[in-house]
Amino acid sequence: MRRDLKNLKYVFGPRSVAVIGASEKPTKLGNVILKNFVDGKFAGKIYPVNPKHESLLGLKCYPSITKVPGKVDLAIFAVPAHAVPKIAAQCGRKGVRGAVVLSAGFGEVGNRKLEEELKKAVQKYNIAMIGPNCLGVMNPLKKVDSIFFPFYKFERPPPGDISFVTQSGGVGTCVADLASHYGIGISKFISYGNGASIDEADLIEYLSEDKETKQILLYIEGTRDGRKLMEAMMRANLKKPVIVLKAGRTEGASEAAKSHTGKLAGSYLAYQAAFRQSKVIEVEGLSELFHVVNAFSQPMPKGKRVAVLTNGGGLGVLTADSLEASGLELAKLSAKTKRAVVSTLPKGWTAGNPIDLIADATSEDYYKAVRALVDDEGVDSIIVIILFQAPALDSRVLNVLLGASDERRKPIFVVAVGGDYTEENRKVLDSHGIPTYDSPAYAASSLKRFTDYALSMRKTKKKG
Amino acid sequence: MRRDLKNLKYVFGPRSVAVIGASEKPTKLGNVILKNFVDGKFAGKIYPVNPKHESLLGLKCYPSITKVPGKVDLAIFAVPAHAVPKIAAQCGRKGVRGAVVLSAGFGEVGNRKLEEELKKAVQKYNIAMIGPNCLGVMNPLKKVDSIFFPFYKFERPPPGDISFVTQSGGVGTCVADLASHYGIGISKFISYGNGASIDEADLIEYLSEDKETKQILLYIEGTRDGRKLMEAMMRANLKKPVIVLKAGRTEGASEAAKSHTGKLAGSYLAYQAAFRQSKVIEVEGLSELFHVVNAFSQPMPKGKRVAVLTNGGGLGVLTADSLEASGLELAKLSAKTKRAVVSTLPKGWTAGNPIDLIADATSEDYYKAVRALVDDEGVDSIIVIILFQAPALDSRVLNVLLGASDERRKPIFVVAVGGDYTEENRKVLDSHGIPTYDSPAYAASSLKRFTDYALSMRKTKKKG
Repeated sequence: MRRDLKNLKYVFGPRSVAVIGASEKPTKLGNVILKNFVDGKFAGKIYPVNPKHESLLGLKCYPSITKVPGKVDLAIFAVPAHAVPKIAAQCGRKGVRGAVVLSAGFGEVGNRKLEEELKKAVQKYNIAMIGPNCLGVMNPLKKVDSIFFPFYKFERPPPGDISFVTQSGGVGTCVADLASHYGIGISKFISYGNGASIDEADLIEYLSEDKETKQILLYIEGTRDGRKLMEAMMRANLKKPVIVLKAGRTEGASEAAKSHTGKLAGSYLAYQAAFRQSKVIEVEGLSELFHVVNAFSQPMPKGKRVAVLTNGGGLGVLTADSLEASGLELAKLSAKTKRAVVSTLPKGWTAGNPIDLIADATSEDYYKAVRALVDDEGVDSIIVIILFQAPALDSRVLNVLLGASDERRKPIFVVAVGGDYTEENRKVLDSHGIPTYDSPAYAASSLKRFTDYALSMRKTKKKG
Repeated sequence: MRRDLKNLKYVFGPRSVAVIGASEKPTKLGNVILKNFVDGKFAGKIYPVNPKHESLLGLKCYPSITKVPGKVDLAIFAVPAHAVPKIAAQCGRKGVRGAVVLSAGFGEVGNRKLEEELKKAVQKYNIAMIGPNCLGVMNPLKKVDSIFFPFYKFERPPPGDISFVTQSGGVGTCVADLASHYGIGISKFISYGNGASIDEADLIEYLSEDKETKQILLYIEGTRDGRKLMEAMMRANLKKPVIVLKAGRTEGASEAAKSHTGKLAGSYLAYQAAFRQSKVIEVEGLSELFHVVNAFSQPMPKGKRVAVLTNGGGLGVLTADSLEASGLELAKLSAKTKRAVVSTLPKGWTAGNPIDLIADATSEDYYKAVRALVDDEGVDSIIVIILFQAPALDSRVLNVLLGASDERRKPIFVVAVGGDYTEENRKVLDSHGIPTYDSPAYAASSLKRFTDYALSMRKTKKKG
């Protein structure tokens, strides 16, 4: 691995951080970032750097990076573009290992020379640089946070094992904000902007080796080196799922992408071929990207046979529609499972698949049915529909699902549609790694993606 | 119109209501329904009926419907199935105009004879009956509410102009609960269950004449009389949009539908043909049903040319992808619009479509751009993407959109993706009739459905 890539560990887990261009004005980037580290209770040393101040937020402020007394692992740049390359070189001489350059005004506005200069400076000293022109990084576990969006507008996600590499800071923000809304944890969030020195392929390579990352999400519009990206994705995907959203697929969108990142989005057909060859999971839109996130936290299914459990008949019918349309199969239940289900129903009712526990179903009824399905050899995955609104149900049904999910024997997906009460219940499940969906179709298509990946990995591993 | 259908007005807006089988036990249906009317501040008379009690919830209780002193417009049945037909006949003799029969145990469990008996009883007296085996009706304006799901689990929607006819109480609950979550208003909600006397076609006919209903949603699995349904849909759709979700489209799902409602789902191809011929809007799933709800509250577009406005470049690219994939077009902006947009941008930036106002955009910038787009003759519809997380934006951007939407000159759709802060802003817009989406793809596909409907209506009206 390249030496600067190895230094990425200091970007994600620095022992000390310098904020270059720290400021006292709340509207300034250099103030917001400094506050993130101070208020976020970053455990290491924090060094504000700005010749105009003696101290900031109660911390001693230094006139330049070279005057900082101790070692600095990470420097975050919030100064005008023209000043960045020179300070980057100072950082290199000081022994700084990582840099996040938030400043805009480089290649994206035609200032390619300045960007080249910056690239040379950081590469000379093997500094791992994220940016320029980006939101930078977030690692909730290590309290690293260079995102300049206010906390009250953008909730920060808890620590977790999903890492997200994004060319667009805005798209990244939306997904991370949604994730934190549902309590879904993030390991590393990286908005890499122009990717002048370290690009998306480098980041994927690094994350593929990162033990704290169990799946990699990627949002891209265009890349400089298609082959490099494909090879990085292919290698990473054998170790952990790589899920990709490619934007700029149509002509008008491609134009827009060009003016957004200064890169041509390129022929979508070529990207599609690369995704197929590297076997990564390509999703079709922002919401699908989010839908599959938690899906891949579940244990892998061994086949396509799905059991559907519900306390609302209509939702069961809709889920069966979506499953069959997606190419998954409705499992045939064992006699034992059927007996377990029938024991919960009024006289004369039978157990089909979808299994309709009817609106009277209690948490105990769900328990009996879920236990039977986890043990049923003919069932590969379970979709549990919960009409939380039903009067007979209480929150113990959450324990039923968490217990079954913790055994990690087969994937459990949940469908629940409704207002505040339902949303609060969904959050409990999501924050414990059980994916929930507000539509049968989303659950079915996410399960299909996951099943396809699981079966393709089984094949690859058998061959290998 | 059939005489019993005319009496539906007493179901949706009764001056007095009797709860047959009213109960003192909080777990009993007859208690929940009585409470709904008492706690919901129903303005008319409320008569609990049950021979076992003298009074209930502070109201005098009557031993039978015949002993109730005044006129009764609506009787709600919460008694065992076998007792229903006889009491229905008593209601008829008493002059009751409408009935909601919540009780289960009729055709859906093979008790066709009992259902036939009930049907004959209500038809003899022209009673408008909803049910049996249903959740019944809700009319927030008139405080009519026979839904037995607790208020804390299922938020009731505010009054509005969307009516929803649903064969499945569960599916209906999910949609109505989601609607209230976003503050979207409902005119009439009707879970009609077995539809023994009044079926989905009858309800559509009634609602097509109802001045308080501006659009009709329908969820069905199967129908007894396909031709009658198609003709009712066709006539209604010429007056107001009819949006349909058909479940039980695949083989396994159709089986499930049969055991759910006791009706065969029938050949999906035949349904599709009927939907196409009647020009109603068929949606593909529960979430799409919800996505189009607010879309149809906007003024109709005159063509397919869409302008996209954003403060997040990546979201603009994704929206352009979705628009072009859906068959809509990116509008060419007028020189005047371009000038207005450029005036909000840093030097050197240009105005494309999507229009990228960049992350620094203020509410004032949005105002300038939105005004220009509303006035631009080359723009038929506007999709406004708002990254509410951006530090420069404040809540005045909501006023900008509400003001433009109130003029009702062209449809405005909003895309906003994020956690609590974003959700709260979405609710403000949704509750004022501006549809919001948490994904560019959903906004594009809903706008496509709406545009298709608008253009097909223009053609029909020109011909007619």
